[in-house]
Amino acid sequence: MELLGFEKVSLDGGFWKKRYEINKNATLPAVYERFDESGRIGAFRCLYKEGDENPPHYYWDSDVAKWMEAAAYTLKKEPSPELEEKIDDIVAQIEKNASEDGYFNSYFLTVEPTKRFTDRHKHELYCAGHLMEAAVAYNEATGKDVFLKAMEKYADLIEKVFVKEQSAAFVTPGHEEIELALVKMYKATGKKKYLDLSKFFIDKRGCSEKEKATNGEDIQSSVPVRKQKEAVGHAVRATYLYSAMADLALLTDDKELKEVCFDLFYDIANKKIFVTGGIGSNSRGEAFAPAYYLPNINAYSETCAAIGLVFFAERMQRLKTDSKFADLVERVICNGGLSGVSLDGESFFYENPLAIEPRLGKLNNMHRPIAQRVKIFSCSCCPPNVARFFASIGNLAYGEENGVIYIRQFFDSTLKTEINGEQITLTQRTDFPLSGAIKLEADRDCRIAVRIPGWTSEYQSEKSGDGYMYLDLKKDSPIELDLKPEFYFVNSDPRVTENLGKAALMRGPVVYCLEGIDNGGDLDGVLVDTASPVKTSSLTVSLPAAVCEGERVLPGKDLYERLDQKKTKKAKLTFIPYHAFANRGETAMRVWVDTVR
Amino acid sequence: MELLGFEKVSLDGGFWKKRYEINKNATLPAVYERFDESGRIGAFRCLYKEGDENPPHYYWDSDVAKWMEAAAYTLKKEPSPELEEKIDDIVAQIEKNASEDGYFNSYFLTVEPTKRFTDRHKHELYCAGHLMEAAVAYNEATGKDVFLKAMEKYADLIEKVFVKEQSAAFVTPGHEEIELALVKMYKATGKKKYLDLSKFFIDKRGCSEKEKATNGEDIQSSVPVRKQKEAVGHAVRATYLYSAMADLALLTDDKELKEVCFDLFYDIANKKIFVTGGIGSNSRGEAFAPAYYLPNINAYSETCAAIGLVFFAERMQRLKTDSKFADLVERVICNGGLSGVSLDGESFFYENPLAIEPRLGKLNNMHRPIAQRVKIFSCSCCPPNVARFFASIGNLAYGEENGVIYIRQFFDSTLKTEINGEQITLTQRTDFPLSGAIKLEADRDCRIAVRIPGWTSEYQSEKSGDGYMYLDLKKDSPIELDLKPEFYFVNSDPRVTENLGKAALMRGPVVYCLEGIDNGGDLDGVLVDTASPVKTSSLTVSLPAAVCEGERVLPGKDLYERLDQKKTKKAKLTFIPYHAFANRGETAMRVWVDTVR
Repeated sequence: MELLGFEKVSLDGGFWKKRYEINKNATLPAVYERFDESGRIGAFRCLYKEGDENPPHYYWDSDVAKWMEAAAYTLKKEPSPELEEKIDDIVAQIEKNASEDGYFNSYFLTVEPTKRFTDRHKHELYCAGHLMEAAVAYNEATGKDVFLKAMEKYADLIEKVFVKEQSAAFVTPGHEEIELALVKMYKATGKKKYLDLSKFFIDKRGCSEKEKATNGEDIQSSVPVRKQKEAVGHAVRATYLYSAMADLALLTDDKELKEVCFDLFYDIANKKIFVTGGIGSNSRGEAFAPAYYLPNINAYSETCAAIGLVFFAERMQRLKTDSKFADLVERVICNGGLSGVSLDGESFFYENPLAIEPRLGKLNNMHRPIAQRVKIFSCSCCPPNVARFFASIGNLAYGEENGVIYIRQFFDSTLKTEINGEQITLTQRTDFPLSGAIKLEADRDCRIAVRIPGWTSEYQSEKSGDGYMYLDLKKDSPIELDLKPEFYFVNSDPRVTENLGKAALMRGPVVYCLEGIDNGGDLDGVLVDTASPVKTSSLTVSLPAAVCEGERVLPGKDLYERLDQKKTKKAKLTFIPYHAFANRGETAMRVWVDTVR
Repeated sequence: MELLGFEKVSLDGGFWKKRYEINKNATLPAVYERFDESGRIGAFRCLYKEGDENPPHYYWDSDVAKWMEAAAYTLKKEPSPELEEKIDDIVAQIEKNASEDGYFNSYFLTVEPTKRFTDRHKHELYCAGHLMEAAVAYNEATGKDVFLKAMEKYADLIEKVFVKEQSAAFVTPGHEEIELALVKMYKATGKKKYLDLSKFFIDKRGCSEKEKATNGEDIQSSVPVRKQKEAVGHAVRATYLYSAMADLALLTDDKELKEVCFDLFYDIANKKIFVTGGIGSNSRGEAFAPAYYLPNINAYSETCAAIGLVFFAERMQRLKTDSKFADLVERVICNGGLSGVSLDGESFFYENPLAIEPRLGKLNNMHRPIAQRVKIFSCSCCPPNVARFFASIGNLAYGEENGVIYIRQFFDSTLKTEINGEQITLTQRTDFPLSGAIKLEADRDCRIAVRIPGWTSEYQSEKSGDGYMYLDLKKDSPIELDLKPEFYFVNSDPRVTENLGKAALMRGPVVYCLEGIDNGGDLDGVLVDTASPVKTSSLTVSLPAAVCEGERVLPGKDLYERLDQKKTKKAKLTFIPYHAFANRGETAMRVWVDTVR
């Protein structure tokens, strides 16, 4: 199916409109301010001299580029001279400071001017890729082409160095990103050479001893991509690479590459994803771990990796019409993707743990995530990724195939698109995920396909094999649906050792969690009675909280006691949406809760 | 109570005699061979010159000293010219190579000859302490005094440097050990100056800024010992220090120090000990962790720390007659102490995890213990500690107070001692822990006190407040008891988060575990039905295995499924004694098993 871009979609109200507004009004300016304070914006002036304080880092350009991309998406929806000026200022610095041959990197131009393209692990092509994405977005938003032209020149240089001359010290990037950016460059310019360059980086990856030598598996470079069947290594790099592979597979109708994409996708979706949609559970290398290793306190589950997974899943929908891809996207955006940003939009998690136990410090040679969001990280990739993601979230809602409009996500929104050469306006009215009521209306007759999510028990008989329900929507004759999201408990595959005997509460796609703050301070000995009814609470944290019955195991006299001496007391348990955890101070948290037996 | 030493006790048969024989016949020679091969024995010749291969390490002397101590204990029970010659050879090297002033350390004499007493963290006084313990043991075993005299001279030098001149670069040792060794020196020589020197090191610990500066809490040096209320830092160092503190509190009737010992002991026993008796759950620093942090896969639980805890608990029994101390010793020797050595006596664990999951590699910046015992470690403190511990295990069996003989541990053994000036021979016949039948007989009338362990439900009405049952044992009129060790399940305090909802199987003091090898290969999704009867299996691994009912949670279609869709199948579960785990190849293992609900 063809995915319909956010430029065709306006968010009109409800849950996601609110998130979009917070992103525009709080996240976007907050990220800019932090990047300005920290020297990231200023670094584009390329004035750093050896011995100066605060040298640019080799990933700074990418942070700012993602912010520019986010700002460009916002501009596309609503003009803002102030925002445009900020971007133009940065673009002017790129123009002014780029080398004669088009090269631009604020770190290599100032800190290591003689080391251009010598170190695979210094994110040079990664930064270039993000600048290209930003340039494409800004061109589409404003029609201005200075930035895009500069990036074309840069891409041409990269092609010369890596393909024609092969004069770089490495063959493919240490951090993938430029592959998918070059596909965007191709689409924006129509120049096939950019698609070919993307294909070059994908096809050469893992194909030589040089490629395999340095941290091969950590960066998906130990075997050629067409031989990769399992998701390994750094999860953000992986999903960016896989996204580009899916793009390429579609654009070049490459069946072999498609198969690889499916294998990798299902390896993640069936064995390596948290219930929250987070991925990458190995803090060493921010990487995929062996199948079923999905720890709670040390989940890692980087915000950027969740976003990267959405990029990959979105592209997979182009390869195959199957509601499972959008189901997974929904899992991420309602949970482990959304948890990366505070409810006020100004603070961020890099990692999204599934449990917090404040009484444990930094222990056992174990990495422990922070328990409260912060305004910036030294490696601050996640905040601008959040910003560009929510600025373009309208991308996720709709698709089109053979004249059928696919309703992929339930956003209160208006779609304006063209079907078979005719304009059509379709409105979706919903306060989902608060309720499951959806009202669809169009200004002319059309065929639509509504995703019937995996979590609902409604519309099962009307659901087609691809998970969509196909309907005729008549002009001015709205269709009303109700997906009835109810509370239910899930369990994990038994190979997820840590979760054996535990359950997680969900409502529709929304994962819930316990926080100490709502449950008497700590979560010691908490058991949930999964047979008792779950009720909606009067407390609202992002969405209404849930209350159900449970127990507390009470401490005995000794550390270890006979099981038949165990004492418990009844307890009411209050769950809040996982995406809203850690918004009310540091407190214990659990997604997976042991159950009453 | 006075503890009666192993020299008064002969092991006659049963479980512990077998362990003693394996220790003597396999462990003792195996450890010597590994130490000879690795250069540790040869290092005493002090021939190392800069640039030579295989320089001595600064802890090597302690490894060999512990082996010498073990050999001396064996000699005390059974003469062996060959063993004596080995020790004499090492002693001759110490005599020959010690400095004029009595100093001996094979590392500092050769590798850093100008750095004597300059680095608190290089185990100099620790090595000295172990040499002193060995010297005392060898003197007691053979009557030879060359070694002891050499160590007296060394101790005198240490007193001069640390007390009189205060010319060392540090005040107290970085790794405690010499404190308890000096108490032994005092007892062996009658010279109070050694007790005073021990007291000096204890009283000065943590008392100056210099003491606190370097890794204070890691080495129990951040506050004066009399202000220490919680067990912190490196668990072996801690228990060695606490043992010396308990010695000193007893010998000097120091009430304040006694209180500190009780506080520290109960902090460990009530909050920081594994069900196996292992301690020190933080692999960073091999240290105590915050209360209730008792992880399974990364238990750490060093073999030496278990042994150190027995040293501490044994001394606590001198301060207070309470069966809880011997209960704890029993927990350690039947489980996490014994697991440190293979059933054949030749391989060792440094760490004693409570779970093994082979499909997980080294992950998550997490330290992971090895899954199979090895013959030697680069830091090989545990193997000779095991050797000296089992060579003197008779120490644990008996005590005496006011003419009453205390039966503290159930070893098939003969005690020959003097009560009120008269010789008495008491025999204890038992195959405990195989059964709980104990037959006690004496060659004259006496008053005895039999420990009624915390795990038995027998003799509850006859048990006194201190946990012992006081009985008159008439000459030639045996008393027969049966403690009836039965299978039972225990649970953990709910603050041990990882064990919530899980149970451990025990029989008497013996903790059991599941191994994959007996349960279909892996332990995925295993649940134990704690309400079903536990039966003895025909399989014996050290002790008979146990079989009970359980279930397996079966993998579903998806990684996360509705709890009400969960499918299980019945499964028979075979448990073996924990102390015998990992003796049949690498396989999954669990002590704490989730329960059927």
